Amino acid sequence: MPLIRVDLDRALFDSKHDELSREIHQAQIDALDIPADDKFQTFHPHDANEIKFDPTYGGVDRRSLVIIQILMVRRYTVEIKRALYRALITRLEAIGVRREDVQIGIVENYYEDWFAGTLAD
Amino acid sequence: MPLIRVDLDRALFDSKHDELSREIHQAQIDALDIPADDKFQTFHPHDANEIKFDPTYGGVDRRSLVIIQILMVRRYTVEIKRALYRALITRLEAIGVRREDVQIGIVENYYEDWFAGTLAD
Amino acid sequence: MPLIRVDLDRALFDSKHDELSREIHQAQIDALDIPADDKFQTFHPHDANEIKFDPTYGGVDRRSLVIIQILMVRRYTVEIKRALYRALITRLEAIGVRREDVQIGIVENYYEDWFAGTLAD
Repeated sequence: MPLIRVDLDRALFDSKHDELSREIHQAQIDALDIPADDKFQTFHPHDANEIKFDPTYGGVDRRSLVIIQILMVRRYTVEIKRALYRALITRLEAIGVRREDVQIGIVENYYEDWFAGTLAD
Repeated sequence: MPLIRVDLDRALFDSKHDELSREIHQAQIDALDIPADDKFQTFHPHDANEIKFDPTYGGVDRRSLVIIQILMVRRYTVEIKRALYRALITRLEAIGVRREDVQIGIVENYYEDWFAGTLAD
Repeated sequence: MPLIRVDLDRALFDSKHDELSREIHQAQIDALDIPADDKFQTFHPHDANEIKFDPTYGGVDRRSLVIIQILMVRRYTVEIKRALYRALITRLEAIGVRREDVQIGIVENYYEDWFAGTLAD
């Protein structure tokens, strides 16, 4: 039940939201081995001035910013998280999103912190 | 000091934001026993294509998605969290939101992670 | 790599987003000693009815609400967090944002939970 939030420029959202959704979701399937139908994403298109960043922090040539926040259960190793980053940037690059422009932040919770349409008992 | 973020379709927001706010808040009062005036909510109405989900994940017949994210202090048991989910879906159903369309995700922090208008010392 | 999300009224965003960005960032530099170019902020301007709060919770005379959420690595003491709150409210007051109207919530993660344009290896 990862929940994905993507903050991005409105122009990028408008032109590529379906591809972004598909590639981000496939990266999760590939790296986290989640079920193919475990898809929960919200996109937050931003107008001018709403996303503010430094273009060179970390020695990176950043031109825009696509922020992917992932809320997921604490169960994945550091290696799996790194595999997820690789899968995401590889797939996003294939649809024209520069890896330098991607920021990813993971927040973890526990199984009991989720409700998704049905209660277990 | 739970902080509630609700992502939902704009039409649902426009027609029911006051009821949604009231019922979500009352569910917190009932299940978490928070003070009645401890209310901090942001609503994020979404236009078409911004919320993406699988309509059947978990064997649920999902038609729309109302995502409720709760940032709150780590102090509640699993039983209390489940009582919160029950209170939320029961109250939301009473105002016409299908329980299948609700997703809830909790993120926890600590007392020292909050500032709300005044410093203790 | 703190990631800052600010939810606020659209009018305040429109009139002061650059000042808000600058002062929030400087408060982080002062209190957390982050590099000056470690700047990642998203602003979320809200229209009427989207931000809901109690105007007196905690004995505070609240007229509006500026919510600052900070996602950052778990490494700071309680004292440093309090210094961050002080720096934020002091700087925001200097540009006309009442301290009573500020809410701050911190969420913590770990170094491995970040990707910012480049992989370590």
